[in-house]
Amino acid sequence: MFLDELAGKGGEWLKGTGPESDIVISSRIRLARNLAEFPFVRKCSDGDKLAIEARVSEVINQQSKWSDPVSYHRIDEMNDLDRQFLVERQLISRELAESNGARSVLIDSGEKFSVMINEEDHLRIQAVQSGLDLTEAWHRINAIDDFVDSCLHYAFHPRYGYLTACPTNVGTGMRVSVMLHLPALVMTRELEKVFRSLQKINLAVRGLYGEGSEAMGDFYQISNQITLGKSEIELVQQVNEVIPVMIEYERKARDFLLRESRDELSDRVSRAHGILQNAKTISSEETMHLLSSIRLGVNMGLIEVDIPMLNRLFLQTQPAHLQKMIGGKLDIADRNVQRAQYLKKSFNISDN
Amino acid sequence: MFLDELAGKGGEWLKGTGPESDIVISSRIRLARNLAEFPFVRKCSDGDKLAIEARVSEVINQQSKWSDPVSYHRIDEMNDLDRQFLVERQLISRELAESNGARSVLIDSGEKFSVMINEEDHLRIQAVQSGLDLTEAWHRINAIDDFVDSCLHYAFHPRYGYLTACPTNVGTGMRVSVMLHLPALVMTRELEKVFRSLQKINLAVRGLYGEGSEAMGDFYQISNQITLGKSEIELVQQVNEVIPVMIEYERKARDFLLRESRDELSDRVSRAHGILQNAKTISSEETMHLLSSIRLGVNMGLIEVDIPMLNRLFLQTQPAHLQKMIGGKLDIADRNVQRAQYLKKSFNISDN
Repeated sequence: MFLDELAGKGGEWLKGTGPESDIVISSRIRLARNLAEFPFVRKCSDGDKLAIEARVSEVINQQSKWSDPVSYHRIDEMNDLDRQFLVERQLISRELAESNGARSVLIDSGEKFSVMINEEDHLRIQAVQSGLDLTEAWHRINAIDDFVDSCLHYAFHPRYGYLTACPTNVGTGMRVSVMLHLPALVMTRELEKVFRSLQKINLAVRGLYGEGSEAMGDFYQISNQITLGKSEIELVQQVNEVIPVMIEYERKARDFLLRESRDELSDRVSRAHGILQNAKTISSEETMHLLSSIRLGVNMGLIEVDIPMLNRLFLQTQPAHLQKMIGGKLDIADRNVQRAQYLKKSFNISDN
Repeated sequence: MFLDELAGKGGEWLKGTGPESDIVISSRIRLARNLAEFPFVRKCSDGDKLAIEARVSEVINQQSKWSDPVSYHRIDEMNDLDRQFLVERQLISRELAESNGARSVLIDSGEKFSVMINEEDHLRIQAVQSGLDLTEAWHRINAIDDFVDSCLHYAFHPRYGYLTACPTNVGTGMRVSVMLHLPALVMTRELEKVFRSLQKINLAVRGLYGEGSEAMGDFYQISNQITLGKSEIELVQQVNEVIPVMIEYERKARDFLLRESRDELSDRVSRAHGILQNAKTISSEETMHLLSSIRLGVNMGLIEVDIPMLNRLFLQTQPAHLQKMIGGKLDIADRNVQRAQYLKKSFNISDN
């Protein structure tokens, strides 16, 4: 089955390639769109949701319309494990996984785009590129949007732009976001300062999987907060301009650490490696934390570990991924034991 | 030089052999003795100390009187590193290392006994056996005491017994002590309770190197507090009777841990192994702590590591030992780096 095949792979957004990929994990754009002839999802009856799902899927779930293979999944007919699996891969949102009624997702086999039906809006289209490449993500999502627009009647107001369920998305309906790996800024405790300055220019920061500014594995996502009054190109540009500054901050923090506390850093990286190879039980959170130290160590030349493997482990050690790979539901204690075994095996293979 | 040769060896008290050696590290007896014709050390002039040192060393520093090779060292002519080295090996006390004036130690090459001159008392004789073997220690120290007594005039009172600088040693002048490794009682938090019951029967407990009840590496020493009103044999018996009870407590705690939290314990042991093999810098305290977990793991069948090597590492990773092996004075940061390298090397050799 398609999802089982995905479990063994890394996903576009953690491939670890593309420009500035030592710091920039992925570039992502999503568009919120609604059909003019239906109420917003929150006001929908079960029948409305079914009708919207049928209408949209009829258009997008046609292999002939896509150059690469796609797969289509009804979330409401899916078990919890598969839903969580798609959330971990960032192919669907937690909201889509946890809501009710007819809802689905179309996924590109390369995981470079996905379309959610009946999330907060009737359609949520997203495109992802590994590394810093918002331009490519923009070209792809723009083409998808044009195609869908040619087949469906979007709710659009000549003055306000695309109408969305939440007023914060009105206008372009676009969110541009970049996922960064910022372990050195975390270690030097400079992150808060940097984030405050981003908020002043209306950019939002949130941690991967975490709530608020907490981040698992030192992964942070920076995105636009404003969707109205600027063109799509301007929104892409605003994020595109600030990312090099963030990269520069992180690089400076790394240089500082190398200069001022190379031994401590090297110790931390090496211990992380030792623990991941030797733990008999380990939580997902601790795993992310230790993988983050090793990823930093590799990028700073302190240790040799295969980066694509590390990126894959960030994803594969998540609860649902682990259970899909093992082939069944496991409670937390068993997951922690299986995770430790999987990590040990992965690092031993990589060392040989 | 003699001390440099010792640095590479484990010492009798950490040899890891003898009865009950998975829990009982060593059995030790010391006698406090004073010469009748001199004041106690604290009241001595520099000249008195010189005279005592000369008088006692004349008797004990004769190879012909001892069956095994002995070495004799003037502590006041020794550098700080060598003094600390002898303290770490428990061949001299911290007090002897840090006091003033003429003072010395005679050491048996097998480290089964030593005689300190001008510590708190004119003579402090000690005998050590690996494992639980107070009887052998008693026979050895009794023979040494008889020999010294035949050559020198001890301060002895027909009613009070041997007179000593501190009233708590008057009578037999004997302290009987056993060093135990009690990691499971520490983990199950039962140690305080056990220690309180020991205090009720006038036995003292103190941690190795640590002050009060704090212990590095979960090593605890149990000894008699009373020296007066009981015969030497009775004092040995009192400690000898309580040790099997302590061993039983520790074994029960180990069984409990195996039964109730085998996975967590196995994880802890394996991580300790991973950290000691991978750290780039590590303190003496953390090293002791991790070695203690591994020692427990070996004795519980959770991991395979050479116990004599572990015992040796407890000693060789101490600051003075490390510096003597490297061959020079090092500051703390450099010691921590050298310690990590030494540990890595030791474990890698032992794994192959």
